[in-house]
Amino acid sequence: MRIFGDLGSGNCQKVKLTADYLRLPYEWIAVDTMKGETRTSAFLARNPFGQIPVVEFADGRHLAQSNAIVRFLARDSTLIPEDDFELAKADELMFWEQYSHEPYVAVARFQMVYLGKSEAEREARLVERGDKALDLMERLLTGRQYFVGDRLSVADISLLPYTRLAHEGGFDLMPRKSVRAWIARCEQDLRLS
Amino acid sequence: MRIFGDLGSGNCQKVKLTADYLRLPYEWIAVDTMKGETRTSAFLARNPFGQIPVVEFADGRHLAQSNAIVRFLARDSTLIPEDDFELAKADELMFWEQYSHEPYVAVARFQMVYLGKSEAEREARLVERGDKALDLMERLLTGRQYFVGDRLSVADISLLPYTRLAHEGGFDLMPRKSVRAWIARCEQDLRLS
Repeated sequence: MRIFGDLGSGNCQKVKLTADYLRLPYEWIAVDTMKGETRTSAFLARNPFGQIPVVEFADGRHLAQSNAIVRFLARDSTLIPEDDFELAKADELMFWEQYSHEPYVAVARFQMVYLGKSEAEREARLVERGDKALDLMERLLTGRQYFVGDRLSVADISLLPYTRLAHEGGFDLMPRKSVRAWIARCEQDLRLS
Repeated sequence: MRIFGDLGSGNCQKVKLTADYLRLPYEWIAVDTMKGETRTSAFLARNPFGQIPVVEFADGRHLAQSNAIVRFLARDSTLIPEDDFELAKADELMFWEQYSHEPYVAVARFQMVYLGKSEAEREARLVERGDKALDLMERLLTGRQYFVGDRLSVADISLLPYTRLAHEGGFDLMPRKSVRAWIARCEQDLRLS
C-alpha cells in the first residue's frame, strides 16, 4: 500500500495513525499541495478529487477521502464498533467532523501555519464555528472515555489530528478539560506519547 | 421511527428517499430551521449538533447526519455494495458530498430559495466550487449507470437530492448530460418519476 500525503495535514495523519496502529505496512509518498502537486495529471489519475490523502493498493486501485480510507483500513479491526448502531454513531461523528469541524478548526490552522496569518487575521467565521465545534466535543466527551462505546474507534481517529493541532490555529484547549483528557488517552492508545 | 426534517432540505430528502425505497415505516415531523426550531432545548436533547435530519428510533435512541442515517437504514439492503472496496468507494463519495458538494451546491440554493438572493447575488466561491463539483460528477458518471457498481447505492442517494435541485441554486445541468441521465435513472429506481 502506498499512502500519498503530507505529514502536516491532519486528514493525512488520520490514515497514518490507522495504518500504524493496525501495523499495516505502507510506503509514504510525500505530496506538497502548496506546490500544486495534487493538480498534476498524474495525481488526478490517482484521485480525480485532487486532494490528499489518497491510498494506492497493490492491485492498482485507489481510495480517497480520509474518513473513507480510515474506515476501510480498519474494517476488520477493533477500531470498528461491533454493534451496528454504535458504528452508525461513529459514522455520525465522522460526517460531522468533515462538515462542521475540519472546515473551521483545520482551515484556521491552515491560514496561520501555511499562509502565515496571525491569530487576529483569521476569518471571524472560522474562529466562531471552530470554537463551537470544540465546545460541542467538550460536551460530548464529558463523563466519557471515548466518543463511541468504551474503546478507541474510527470516530476518535477521525477527530484527533486536527483537535490535537487546534492550538496551531489559535484555539485554546485549556478550558476544555474533557477534550484534553481524551487527547491524552488517544495518544497513549496510539503510542504517540 | 420518527424522522425530524424539512421536505425542502436535500439532506432530509436523502433520509426520506431511503426509508421510502426500503418501505420502512416512519412518522415525518416537520421542523422549520428558519424559525429556530433546531435551537430549542427539546431539539438539542435529540440532536446536540442542532441540525436536521435526525431520526428517533422506537427505543428512544437518536441518529443525526444525513449520510450516517442513510447508511444505517440501508445496512441490510441492496443499497449497500456487497464488496468491501465498493462500499469504501461509496463512503468516499458520501464524504466528498458533505465536504465538496453540499457546502456549495446546496448553500447557493439556500441563498436563493431561503434568503431570496438572485443568481447574481450568490457568493462567487459557492458558484465556482459548485460548478466544479458538478463537473466532477459529470466526469465520474460518463460511461457509467451509477456511481458505484452497476446498481443504485447509498452513494447515489447521497448525491441525488441536491444535484437534482441544483438549478434552484442557479446551476445549469443542461450541458452535463451524464448527470442528467443519472438523475433520470435514479428517479425511476426511486419511483420519483
